[in-house]
Amino acid sequence: MSQKNNSQKKINLKQVYQLAYDCMKANGCNHDNADALAETMTAAERDMCHAHGLFRLPGYAAALKSGKVKGDAAPTIKKIAPAVLQLDAHNGYAPFALKAAKDALAECASQNGIAAMALIRIHHFAALWMEIEALAEMGLAAFAFTAYKPAVAPTGGSNPFFGTNPMAFGWPRKDQPPMVFDQASAAMARGEVMIAAREGKTLPEGVGITKDGQPTTDPNQVLEGAMLTFGGHKGASIALMIELLVGPLIGEAASFEAGKADNNDGGPPQGGELIIAIDPGRFGSSEDPYAHAERLFEELLSQKGTRLPAQRRYDNRKKTPLEGVSIPESLLDTIKELTGYH
Amino acid sequence: MSQKNNSQKKINLKQVYQLAYDCMKANGCNHDNADALAETMTAAERDMCHAHGLFRLPGYAAALKSGKVKGDAAPTIKKIAPAVLQLDAHNGYAPFALKAAKDALAECASQNGIAAMALIRIHHFAALWMEIEALAEMGLAAFAFTAYKPAVAPTGGSNPFFGTNPMAFGWPRKDQPPMVFDQASAAMARGEVMIAAREGKTLPEGVGITKDGQPTTDPNQVLEGAMLTFGGHKGASIALMIELLVGPLIGEAASFEAGKADNNDGGPPQGGELIIAIDPGRFGSSEDPYAHAERLFEELLSQKGTRLPAQRRYDNRKKTPLEGVSIPESLLDTIKELTGYH
Repeated sequence: MSQKNNSQKKINLKQVYQLAYDCMKANGCNHDNADALAETMTAAERDMCHAHGLFRLPGYAAALKSGKVKGDAAPTIKKIAPAVLQLDAHNGYAPFALKAAKDALAECASQNGIAAMALIRIHHFAALWMEIEALAEMGLAAFAFTAYKPAVAPTGGSNPFFGTNPMAFGWPRKDQPPMVFDQASAAMARGEVMIAAREGKTLPEGVGITKDGQPTTDPNQVLEGAMLTFGGHKGASIALMIELLVGPLIGEAASFEAGKADNNDGGPPQGGELIIAIDPGRFGSSEDPYAHAERLFEELLSQKGTRLPAQRRYDNRKKTPLEGVSIPESLLDTIKELTGYH
Repeated sequence: MSQKNNSQKKINLKQVYQLAYDCMKANGCNHDNADALAETMTAAERDMCHAHGLFRLPGYAAALKSGKVKGDAAPTIKKIAPAVLQLDAHNGYAPFALKAAKDALAECASQNGIAAMALIRIHHFAALWMEIEALAEMGLAAFAFTAYKPAVAPTGGSNPFFGTNPMAFGWPRKDQPPMVFDQASAAMARGEVMIAAREGKTLPEGVGITKDGQPTTDPNQVLEGAMLTFGGHKGASIALMIELLVGPLIGEAASFEAGKADNNDGGPPQGGELIIAIDPGRFGSSEDPYAHAERLFEELLSQKGTRLPAQRRYDNRKKTPLEGVSIPESLLDTIKELTGYH
């Protein structure tokens, strides 16, 4: 990594894409994988989710370089039960696999009313809202779950056991972007803790503990110690559910297993993801379920001070194509090095 | 209601069942409904979940008396998509409907790998862990969701909008009771707030606000004002997801609609429930998914101070058949009055 440098440079989204694409190509991705990864990082920057944007590029590059992740992987999909698909990513990154996933899953969900996709041998380093949004744009409600490596302590314990374990859910809307939430079971996304550490900031209380189990607001100590779940034991229940769904259920590694197997090259471990897609047209409502949901949203938003999940992202999405995004110069230097530009 | 009286009487579980059964019969239930309701309340008392035990009996009786709920309702089930069943409870209480539900749902899940059941025109006043546990005992992992009437404020708002909106999840275990959690999206179950009010106790901070939106620890003020979600906006996202799943998705009332339609007789409103069941044998794992899950649980429990969700209930379950359960005498008096014993 380059020397610490907090100054930022403004670049446009096309430049974000090109930096990401060139870097992934230079590190062993074929066109399809480089393109899908670059699209994913560009979408994150577009929504100002910097923790899932170019900030991830060094990690993506490291795991290609170590050989853990295959830059030319192409996913294969098979139906393993009438309403269950299995996608084998063959140790590729998630974005290209997910491009292939959505049509197959949408078709299976529309046929059966509900369908699941078990994604195995996948390396997931992005936000889950992207796959949820893609399915919602096809008219489907959907859940997605994934785990990672141990980072979060269980209630009552003091050592990392759960991954940050995000759960996402989406509901389609007709004339606007879908209602989507994507939230870590951890009190804060690990990427945010890493950014706080990089920028020398402190964390809110309740986010993590030191390696001796003591509360701390120092992001570096939390990265050495453990994060905590959101909402105490209720967040921990959700984290455990996610371990079961993306580990034992689909025959992939739970976080503690992924942690043991991983080479710690800085990129994401091999793991699993589960997506459940639902066709609201097949659940028996006598009225249009989308119109009914709009009444629900309208009633909620009639309370002053409220907003729907993802609203901030959608607001950012309108701004960044015009205004560009700010990227730390130190990160841009690192990316140039990784790409082989001198 | 009888006069406030904090003294308790110890009774055994057979007596709990009989009190509940007789009271439900005396208030218009047929045998099947009275039996299922009594079993449900007895199971709650057995696990020392008093908020879902005999404490609910006056509410159950009130809604039978008002005619809102039908004591002789028998559920009908139809397949509305290959992996989706619709159960119409015909305005009966949930327990008898759920008895009929589990075999049909288990069969559909085993056929398809995953299946959903949309329960409509149902009155749900019990804990969700019961239906989850029943499915887990058949080898299925399952989610359940239900809403209620507005009680919980959305993030940023100050008026009740969400129901307490529990979400439950279960995973089967071979030689022991399943891993099950059942947690309200509210910071505390409403029944617990009602019990705190009855017993003159204060609530922890962060559970609720007054009707003017101010923080309070007074349970009576929270019941007049609004509860808050657990884990801040993340709990609110889950509450909103549940409204969508048991309202618009299945064509039933969201909490705000159930609140408007309800006659406020003290019993549960008409609403919806969604159960999603998963057959772990159909998800492609090359090893036994149950054995894999046991390794996960073992690793978790190797951390001192940890336990699995529901462990406290299972510990209680061993004690109460021998020790009986303590019921407030005031509640016993009320039940006798409702049953017509003098």
